[in-house]
Amino acid sequence: MSGTSGVEATQEGRRIRISELAAFVARVFEAVGLPGRDAQRVAALMAEADARGAEGHGVFRLAQYVKRIQSGGINTRPEMRILRDLPASALLDGDNAMGHLVMSRAAEIAVEKARTAGVAWVGARNSNHAGPAFLYAKMPLAHDMAGLYVAVGSANHLPPWGGTAMLLSTNPIAIAVPSLRYPPVILDMATTNAAYGKVKIKAQRNEPMPEGWMIDRQGRPLTDPKRASEGFLLPIGGPKGYGLALMFGLLAGTLNGAAFGKNVVDFNADSSTITNTGHFMVAVNIAAFADVQAFKQQVDEIWDQMKSSPKLPGFDEIRLPGERSARVYEDRKANGVPLTSELRRVLDELANRVGVERI
Amino acid sequence: MSGTSGVEATQEGRRIRISELAAFVARVFEAVGLPGRDAQRVAALMAEADARGAEGHGVFRLAQYVKRIQSGGINTRPEMRILRDLPASALLDGDNAMGHLVMSRAAEIAVEKARTAGVAWVGARNSNHAGPAFLYAKMPLAHDMAGLYVAVGSANHLPPWGGTAMLLSTNPIAIAVPSLRYPPVILDMATTNAAYGKVKIKAQRNEPMPEGWMIDRQGRPLTDPKRASEGFLLPIGGPKGYGLALMFGLLAGTLNGAAFGKNVVDFNADSSTITNTGHFMVAVNIAAFADVQAFKQQVDEIWDQMKSSPKLPGFDEIRLPGERSARVYEDRKANGVPLTSELRRVLDELANRVGVERI
Repeated sequence: MSGTSGVEATQEGRRIRISELAAFVARVFEAVGLPGRDAQRVAALMAEADARGAEGHGVFRLAQYVKRIQSGGINTRPEMRILRDLPASALLDGDNAMGHLVMSRAAEIAVEKARTAGVAWVGARNSNHAGPAFLYAKMPLAHDMAGLYVAVGSANHLPPWGGTAMLLSTNPIAIAVPSLRYPPVILDMATTNAAYGKVKIKAQRNEPMPEGWMIDRQGRPLTDPKRASEGFLLPIGGPKGYGLALMFGLLAGTLNGAAFGKNVVDFNADSSTITNTGHFMVAVNIAAFADVQAFKQQVDEIWDQMKSSPKLPGFDEIRLPGERSARVYEDRKANGVPLTSELRRVLDELANRVGVERI
Repeated sequence: MSGTSGVEATQEGRRIRISELAAFVARVFEAVGLPGRDAQRVAALMAEADARGAEGHGVFRLAQYVKRIQSGGINTRPEMRILRDLPASALLDGDNAMGHLVMSRAAEIAVEKARTAGVAWVGARNSNHAGPAFLYAKMPLAHDMAGLYVAVGSANHLPPWGGTAMLLSTNPIAIAVPSLRYPPVILDMATTNAAYGKVKIKAQRNEPMPEGWMIDRQGRPLTDPKRASEGFLLPIGGPKGYGLALMFGLLAGTLNGAAFGKNVVDFNADSSTITNTGHFMVAVNIAAFADVQAFKQQVDEIWDQMKSSPKLPGFDEIRLPGERSARVYEDRKANGVPLTSELRRVLDELANRVGVERI
């Protein structure tokens, strides 16, 4: 629920300080051609993904990003441009930069516009995979704004409801709302029951998938993760999740002149074709609707209401969206990010290959 | 998926022209104190709900609305006020008017602001049940804009994930995107697997509910709709649907100073307490992001892609969100809206009681 889809991927390994992890990632990106400032910005966001428990979208992706950069699939010297500009909206062309750079910029523009306009919506085209959705949804929080972020996913694993052609991705949404005493409420979810990364983890571990994650081409439950390529993901709520994935694709992809449907490039399978990834980002200035302090206090009250609900048998806790991620972050800020020996090996090899100091 | 949740409620009955249905509803509202223009506006929207297949949110609700008006639970002479106003946002106080009036006004303001701002977000408080979500999401379409609408539902039937306290409603979302040759793509969905109205229909028909709609207080599947009060609805995708319902409640309710959580009034059980219903409405000006004609054509292309997917066994059609509703509308525009004899009886009684000509 909360951007922690990759958390199970990491069996406990030696822990690395967040700042060291970020410094390593920045070294690697600089070595393959990103300007220092850009390298640091992407690195900080990737390390934050790991620190907040979204390991499937953090440093785990580094080797893949480097491969794409070295194959010419990502532009390391982009010139982003605002193509359309109105008081509460902008269309940003990312010039095929790292997605993290494009969407950080989009979030900045949205926040800046929402200061005076109340709300702002920034669409992006010619972007790339940008890591976990919550990273961008939470950016407006520091400015007493709520954030919404939607992306066209970077590989199609979902057919329209009742069909078998994989025309849709898990198109995620993240929504972040500020609070006072408690962590901000941050939802980060795919529109499918399981993100595809979870399927990969089950395959690595030789564990069956629960029914409801995938079906095969005859519509039968598919529980063997090694057979994942023979089937497809199931959307949340059946036709509803399909509907959400479709609408998000139209608004984050088609509206921005970005890829959606047949023209989505599977960035796992193809490292050189330009993905033209689309996203959008909305900033909602709390002060445009409410007294900021009073609102945050009311969010805390809602938090308390949820937490104090009696529990169903088998549940020992009611959680708010983002709560687990915030707890993971507290731990990792103090004790570092665990890296599996397998991931360390991959990162060491990568360091050798691009000629930078190992982590 | 597409605002047609109540379509099964109506067994085929004698058909009434849409304009006659609207005229009847307007007569009733005028008789109980709504000014003529307001009565006609609400009536047109309620008749449109029926005409587009959302019978559970159309004239079926008339007796309930009248009861609430006569109990003082709705203000027939409201003075709506804009409490906060920025170039791309507004907070509208509905003064406890019929929700249809509040949200029509909110949509108008959003469209007007989005003309120059690119995007606009209008929140509403002191509103009421406004019928099906798609009615408002589709209003910007006529202005070459996309629309998003979110509401805090009018009764809590959903606990937080893992809990048993019914603190959340089915908080629906509707998203509408314009197209060229095909009907606009319009998603209208609850954040629960089944809307509560569907449960009521199963009870009326003495049919069991499928597993997945509801669970009881021990977490076991609840399939007997007559026992619905002993359990609660299940959110789409488990914790994900809970997360969506919660975030929508914070943004449509709390942010606007409207009811959310414990203070939501069950408008089915209570006809006089002011509900302080919250909603929000977003208008997205297509021209702020794309060439309008080219965009609509691309939406048509996505439509064609989805429709041409091979089908799973057991499916004879791939549908787009809003497609079924558009088909129902074509039929009912030509042949009228079917009303069951039971509903006609209720409407006849209502006509006698308020002293207007029967339908």
